[in-house]
Amino acid sequence: MSTRQPVAIVFDTFGTVVDWRGSLVAELTNFGRERGIDADWTALVDAWRAAYRPSMDRVRRGELSWTKLDDLHRGSLDRLVHEFDIHGLTEEDLRHINLGWHRLKPWPDAVVGLTRLKRRYVIGPLSNGNVSLLTNMAKRAGLPWDMVFGADLFAHYKPDPETYLGVCKLLDLEVGQVMMAAAHNSDLAAARKLGLMTAFFPRPTEYGPRQTKDHAPESDWDIVATDIEDMAAQLGASN
Amino acid sequence: MSTRQPVAIVFDTFGTVVDWRGSLVAELTNFGRERGIDADWTALVDAWRAAYRPSMDRVRRGELSWTKLDDLHRGSLDRLVHEFDIHGLTEEDLRHINLGWHRLKPWPDAVVGLTRLKRRYVIGPLSNGNVSLLTNMAKRAGLPWDMVFGADLFAHYKPDPETYLGVCKLLDLEVGQVMMAAAHNSDLAAARKLGLMTAFFPRPTEYGPRQTKDHAPESDWDIVATDIEDMAAQLGASN
Repeated sequence: MSTRQPVAIVFDTFGTVVDWRGSLVAELTNFGRERGIDADWTALVDAWRAAYRPSMDRVRRGELSWTKLDDLHRGSLDRLVHEFDIHGLTEEDLRHINLGWHRLKPWPDAVVGLTRLKRRYVIGPLSNGNVSLLTNMAKRAGLPWDMVFGADLFAHYKPDPETYLGVCKLLDLEVGQVMMAAAHNSDLAAARKLGLMTAFFPRPTEYGPRQTKDHAPESDWDIVATDIEDMAAQLGASN
Repeated sequence: MSTRQPVAIVFDTFGTVVDWRGSLVAELTNFGRERGIDADWTALVDAWRAAYRPSMDRVRRGELSWTKLDDLHRGSLDRLVHEFDIHGLTEEDLRHINLGWHRLKPWPDAVVGLTRLKRRYVIGPLSNGNVSLLTNMAKRAGLPWDMVFGADLFAHYKPDPETYLGVCKLLDLEVGQVMMAAAHNSDLAAARKLGLMTAFFPRPTEYGPRQTKDHAPESDWDIVATDIEDMAAQLGASN
């Protein structure tokens, strides 16, 4: 890695810190079984995630005024429940299912790795999730953030520069003092373009067994690790 | 107290959670001794704090565009160093002294009380300090916030409604689900007017031995406690 050291490290969250697919599939499968509602919940989760980027792009292009992720998720869910021909869900059920994104479970290395990094660095999520989603997730999962950077603080979604630069401004740091950590090469490319440091580790099953991308680093990121624990070790924060 | 329970509790910080006067007087007295610079550091700290509200009021009245507290503090410090006829300070010294507000020490009950409250509630500062100040302070002092609400998130200073309502919006909570905790009756009055719950505990030496106000609650706040540990006990979060 570079000999430079960051002061703060911000983490992409969905897929990088928490296992959105495994968490949502497990929760919805249980929910369907308990409620006797039959559906292809795995396919629903995959379709829901597939709607993520297009829904944010509508905001990014200005077709939709600023809308936080909880509300984009809900719009997509309502459409998909109809398309998947799922019946018997009340308004309360839909609200509960939508808040499943607040209850995502961390990858096994996340809490221990972040706890180690926190001793040396300011750490936070930099996520397209909103502050309430990220705060509720952290509390439930034990993610020890110093500060929570939700996209609603900036009224912009990654990879818009306002998000990465907004973190630097709020922390009163130069771009070169902040490191972006993600399991997604595209997120790191956007951060590096602005001058941030970068850390990559793969999450090869984020999208399930047939994941086609982000198995390996696609550039000479400042850190390339196997997971957050390994990243902490490489940064000298190994215990 | 009321039978209602908050979901989140936000804390005023300067004076309520940390002892700004004791911390700054001790730090500057040591600094002056080490550097052989003679000055009435206690009087300087009191004058610095006295400049706090007038400097924010200039922003509040629109005479000054949004300026974060670190920068207001620095402007006041530069003026006071001149007025107090203090010589021998370099730019680096002034920057270091100004960041003394990032290094304030917590009152003895703060860390244990907040740690207990965190188990049941979302907790954060709601302070006129900026995010970097509050994040650095929390890291150094061990304040276990879930989320850090600095005034720069809202580009408004308390008691502007945008600050209290901004917390509710970011946490996606109704005003009645958020409790404001402060050692200052005026802060609580502003919060209650908007529908927030309120908690008061006195910090009778915040302004030193001759403090004239906020020795007692001036209204029937939802909670009146002796300190944060007692507040936690009253909310059933006693260990």
